[in-house]
This record gives sequence, C-alpha cells and structure tokens, in this order.
Amino acid sequence: MTGACAHIIAVGSELLTASRIDTNSLAVTERLNAIGMAIAAKLVVGDDRKQIAAAMHDSLDHADLVVVTGGLGPTDDDVTREAAAAVFGVPLQEDATILEGIRRRFASRGLEMPEINRRQAMVPEGAEVLSNPRGTAPGLWIEEGLRRLLLLPGPPQEMQPMLDAWAARHGERLGGGMHIVRRVLKVANVSESHVEEMAQPVYARWRESGVPLSVTILAAPGQIELHLTATAASAKEADAALDPAVDDLVEALHGHVFTTRGETLEAVVGRLLLESGSTIALAESCTGGLLASRLTDIPGSSAYVLGGVVAYSNALKIDLLGVPAALIDEHGAVSEPVAVAMADGVKARSRASLGVGITGIAGPGGGSSAKPVGTVAIALSTPEGAKVRMQIFRGDRHQIKFGATQAALDDIRRLFVRAAAQ
Amino acid sequence: MTGACAHIIAVGSELLTASRIDTNSLAVTERLNAIGMAIAAKLVVGDDRKQIAAAMHDSLDHADLVVVTGGLGPTDDDVTREAAAAVFGVPLQEDATILEGIRRRFASRGLEMPEINRRQAMVPEGAEVLSNPRGTAPGLWIEEGLRRLLLLPGPPQEMQPMLDAWAARHGERLGGGMHIVRRVLKVANVSESHVEEMAQPVYARWRESGVPLSVTILAAPGQIELHLTATAASAKEADAALDPAVDDLVEALHGHVFTTRGETLEAVVGRLLLESGSTIALAESCTGGLLASRLTDIPGSSAYVLGGVVAYSNALKIDLLGVPAALIDEHGAVSEPVAVAMADGVKARSRASLGVGITGIAGPGGGSSAKPVGTVAIALSTPEGAKVRMQIFRGDRHQIKFGATQAALDDIRRLFVRAAAQ
Repeated sequence: MTGACAHIIAVGSELLTASRIDTNSLAVTERLNAIGMAIAAKLVVGDDRKQIAAAMHDSLDHADLVVVTGGLGPTDDDVTREAAAAVFGVPLQEDATILEGIRRRFASRGLEMPEINRRQAMVPEGAEVLSNPRGTAPGLWIEEGLRRLLLLPGPPQEMQPMLDAWAARHGERLGGGMHIVRRVLKVANVSESHVEEMAQPVYARWRESGVPLSVTILAAPGQIELHLTATAASAKEADAALDPAVDDLVEALHGHVFTTRGETLEAVVGRLLLESGSTIALAESCTGGLLASRLTDIPGSSAYVLGGVVAYSNALKIDLLGVPAALIDEHGAVSEPVAVAMADGVKARSRASLGVGITGIAGPGGGSSAKPVGTVAIALSTPEGAKVRMQIFRGDRHQIKFGATQAALDDIRRLFVRAAAQ
Repeated sequence: MTGACAHIIAVGSELLTASRIDTNSLAVTERLNAIGMAIAAKLVVGDDRKQIAAAMHDSLDHADLVVVTGGLGPTDDDVTREAAAAVFGVPLQEDATILEGIRRRFASRGLEMPEINRRQAMVPEGAEVLSNPRGTAPGLWIEEGLRRLLLLPGPPQEMQPMLDAWAARHGERLGGGMHIVRRVLKVANVSESHVEEMAQPVYARWRESGVPLSVTILAAPGQIELHLTATAASAKEADAALDPAVDDLVEALHGHVFTTRGETLEAVVGRLLLESGSTIALAESCTGGLLASRLTDIPGSSAYVLGGVVAYSNALKIDLLGVPAALIDEHGAVSEPVAVAMADGVKARSRASLGVGITGIAGPGGGSSAKPVGTVAIALSTPEGAKVRMQIFRGDRHQIKFGATQAALDDIRRLFVRAAAQ
C-alpha cells in the first residue's frame, strides 16, 4: 500500500464490555478507502483522558490521519476534547457560536440549555469546528503539519454526515488522489491451505504490475474468500490492474471460484436457476430446512424455488417423499440410495426440474465408526438422471449443517457450469 | 474495577476493511470478566509482523495480560507466532507433537498434509502449547514475569474452547479474586422502548444493594436483551445480588422474558417440547424453512422435530399439505385460514402433536396496501384446536423471515407457559 494510512480510535468504556462493539469504524473505513486511504490500525479505549491522549499521541506518530469517534458528549466522562488539547499542547477555549447553536437547539424544543452542555462548546485552540446538524456535539479538525486529528461524535447518525462533509473538504488533498478498489472471490468446499497452494504461483506474476495489488485469504464459515485490493490514481486504473489478476486467480483455482463480485453462493445459484428457467425442490434431513431457507433468502426466489420437505423422521421420508421403507432398512437413512430417492421423490412430487436430497448425521450424537458424525450424502436429481456423493464435514452441529448446504449449492452450481461448457 | 486488566489484540488485515469486524473480543471479554479481569483497551492490526510485534510490546507494558486472536494459520500472512517470538526475544522451534497432530488431522480425512501447514507447528521457545481439538492451529501461552501473552486462533469455534481451557488453568491466579457475573434476559417480539418502560421502575430498588449492579439493554435481531452484571469478591456474593434483581425484572416484564440464562429461543422451545413429550411439524411458506432449521440447530431435536414442508408454491401447499385450493382462491395465500390449513395439514400428515403454519410476504416485492410487505399469518394447530394471528414485521427480507420465526417460536413457548399455569 503506497497511499496514505489512517488509524481509527473509538472512545467509550461501554465498547470494552462483552455486550457492545464499535461499528462506527466500518463506516469510517469505507469513507476513507473511497478517498484512497487504508486503515493501518483500530483501537478502542475507555473514557479515560490519559489513555485517550496516549492512544492519540501514539497514532499521530504512525498514521497520516487519526480519526476519533465518541467522547464529545456533555457529561463528565466525555473527555476526548481535553485529551486532544493536551496532545497538541493547546488550551481549550469556549466558542461563542457553538454555545449559541446549542442554546438554540434546546430553545427550539422549549427547553433551557443544561449547564453541563457548555462543555460541548469548548474547542482546542486552532481547531476547525465541524457543525452537527443532528446533535449538540460539534466535530473538530486539528491539523498541525503532518499531525492530523479528526474528532467525530459517537452516534452514527451524527457522525456520518459530518464525516462526509469533512471528506468533501479535505479528502482529495489527504488521500493523495489515490483510489482503493477491492474484489472479493469466493470458493466453497475447498480447504484454506489448498486454496493457498493453488493461488500461490499466481502472485509472482503480479509483481510486474505497475499498480500495487494485495491479496488476503480468509476462511469464512463454509468458504474461503480472497480479497484483492488495488491502489491506483484512478478507479479505472485500479480496475485495469484487477481484471487480469482476477482472471489469473479464477484460472488457477480451476472451477472452484463461485463469485468474483462478493456474492453469496445462494445468490449465484439463484441467478443460474433463474437464467436457465429451472425450478428446484429440496428434500432435507440433517440440514433441517437450512438449504431451503438459504435459497429463499434471495429476493425473487419464488420464481424458481417451489419448496421442499424437511424429512427429519423416517416416516416423513416414506410418506411425503415416497422413499421405499425397504431402501432405508437395507442401506440406512444416511446412505447414497436414500439421498437419491429423496431427491427423485421431491422432484417428482413438486414437478421441479431439479431435486436435491440431503441426508446425514449432524451430531453430536448418532455417529458410528462406519458413518461418523458429519457424514452426509448429497444427491441431485436432474432431467438427465441422478448424481450422488458422500462427504464428511467437520465442526459442530451448525457447521456441519452449513457445510453440507454449501457443498450441495456448489454441486448445483457446477451442473450449470458444466452445461454451459458443453 | 480494582482487579487486573487486559488488552485484546485482534490480528487480520481483513479486520481493517469495511466488510469485517472483530467479534472475538466480545467472547474474550466475557471470559476474562468472569475471572475478574476488565478490558482496558482493544486493538486491531493487520497481518504485518512489525506492527503486531509493536502492538504486543506496547500492550505488555500496560496490561497484566495480553490476548491476541488470529494470525496462527498456515499461510505466509499468518505471522503472530513470529511476532511473539521477536517480542520475547526467543527462537521458534518445530514441535514434533503438534506436527504429528496436524498430519493425523489431514490423514483422518484421507488427505496428505500440505507442506505449508508445517508452519503451524512452530512454537516460541518456552511457550506452553494449548491443544486445538477443532483445527490445526494450536494456541500458545507465554508467561515471563509480569509479561503474559495468550495467542489464540481466529476462528471462534477453535478460539472459544481453548480460551475456556486456559481460564480453567490460569484464571483464578491472574484474576485477582474479583468475580464479575452476568445474566442475560431475553425478550422476543417486544420493542426496545417498551422493554425500557417496563424495566425502568425496577432499577431504583437495586441502589440499596451492597453489590454494584449494572444493566445494559441491547437490541439484537428479533429480540431485546437485558445484560445484568454484578461485581463481587465471590461468584456466590454476585449471584446473591443478581437472583432477586433477575426476579424483579422477570416480574416487571410480565411473561415476555423467555430466558434468564442467555439461551436462544429455539433452545427454550426445544426444552419445553422435550419435557412435555410433544412432537412438532412445520409448514412454512415465507420463512422458507428457517423455522425448521432453527429448531433443528438444537442437539437432540430429532426427538421432537418430525419435519416439515416448505410450501413456497401454492401447488405444494395443496399437494403436500392438503390446503384446499378454494381456500387460497377465496382468502389469498397470505391469510389466517390458509395458515390454519397449513398447520392442520402438516400436523395430520406427520401425526405430530403440534403443527405450525406460517404464510406471509417477505418482500421486497409482493406487497399491497391491504397486505404490505412484512405481513405474516402464524397458526398453531394443537390437540385443543387452532390459534392464528396476523402480524406485520419490519425490515428487509431476512429480518422479516427471522422476525416471523421468532414470533412463532414465542407463540409456541406461551402455549406451554399457559399450560403450566393452569
């Protein structure tokens, strides 16, 4: 990353408890990325003047910009203003215009300004005041040579418009005219190390690129994500560097990449079903309806999802899906033949063009040495006949359920990729 | 807080983008709070060895304990091990036991260990190895005088059990004898402001308590949570202060609290079904299988969930659930009579003691002025007859789906509460 970089400090003791998390930093990151700034570090500190000042001091030494959210309220524990004044070695002065604005704000609701709100009119000498149309706390912008500190209020609805206004005024100059563009590739049902092994040879080629490219490999539940980032003088230039890099990766990961645009697997499968005019029905045992639920998370999915059967009990497998009882007796409920019969059964009863059958052991109980917990049979019933396979998934009950739906969705996706290649 | 304090460092460049946020720190905070440690600061740094080392160095100077999550994977950008070794000035050594464990893990899936996984067996000299039953990366615990560093893997399902095991071994000694105990009350299908209104009068009574009590009200998806915390010299003393406070709140929120132990609503309903010897079957339209999936997330749910039908199309409502076509023509698919017919139908076909029928408009399309997006009919078919009601849920497609399953689960819960009260 050759562009400028920023640190974000979230202030608030409540953000250090087990029940709250700072999310302002996501909005700040998005805004700063857009003007070409990367985030080098994020911090959360409590409502303690010394600790806030220490964090500001340290970050100002390391980053081109430090953004602080929170601690600008009227109460005793709002001490971000004091910390900033101390770090820059300047006094706090009462700003008559801010004071008047706060008074008017209270007056417009028929109230007198409580004396404690006077603190919100205190401004470190030399700071630029950023007006707050949605609350009493103004923002503050302090720039002294290469030390740049932006103080924003904590409530997101007050923080966001102020950040936008600040970026419009100072963004281009500080971002160095750079743009950061990101692409997200995703792969299902392959391990992180295998993705890394396949991708590794591609990286060397990128070193020749004039535009710096960086890649992060992330293991998300049931999938691996590759986040590619290019930093360039224009979004167009970044795209021009990313396009061939994405192509390289897609080829290196032959067939495993299901999206280069950050889509979910259910969105990709939904699009393929819609475009091909197919309809689908699901027969689920161990996944308990999760596959149907994921497919129906996609707006417009009623055009291709006819529905399904959650056949948790053997009786429902027999009654609602027409699975022969003898087949269950002979092979067991978790078996390839039963998965096929479930897929065929739901396809026939719903008159869908595609049927899916999933039966397995989600655990924690029910496993055996022949069929350990995580064993799942996945069948697809297509107009050309049925395909079926067994796979063992790892993790707890929820991970096994999710992993099995990922594998089934990826199998469906591959049907269409293969059809398109023929 | 008079006890010891900790810093938490989350490692991962992806956690510095606009699309990811560190949530591991919440679980770490909860665990450390329980052993009497407060969190003084949280940091997020990218996959950069120097920056990780600098953050560790700085935090070790200021905190009694530093917990680092992430960066223990097998790839080139996983450099937490190297950073820790550099900070303590010790070499990394290959640990034969870890290496063998990783090899076995791959072998159990019929795979050979990729060579890059060898990095996960590297251990800073003098570190204690924390075994990882759910993944390849072991955790590491380094204690040198007052400098204490705990390295945990990033995936929560690997991090959590390792953290628990560490706390069991070292927690009491490091926590300084204070205990922070928390209770989580949850309420479904009531707004945050109504919860606040009902709870407010209770707080005043607590001021007399010798043990400091604090409460945070949090709006989570589809539910409101009340987090009560007591800090005391012993867990027993904290419990003694919390018990009457919890009772006060449960009474003030008459009947709305579904758990005082932080359980999920599906876990509570599962327990009620199991204890009463009931069985359940689901007929879902707009929720698309989400209710079945949530109920089957609970281990042992096969004892009471028989299964269900996802009747997205009207044809499946008619064919698989026996909903009369005339009923759909007359009232529309989203109507109380159709919801009742679905609940009755799935109950009859599965021979369950309880049937649930849900039909509604998840959006974004399909709404009308009479039945706007979010309109959902929820029916319960019981041995004593059917109950049905309509409710309008807010939010996007996913929020409407989730909200409707929350409301249905809470309706089921109330059946049993009422039965128990009679």
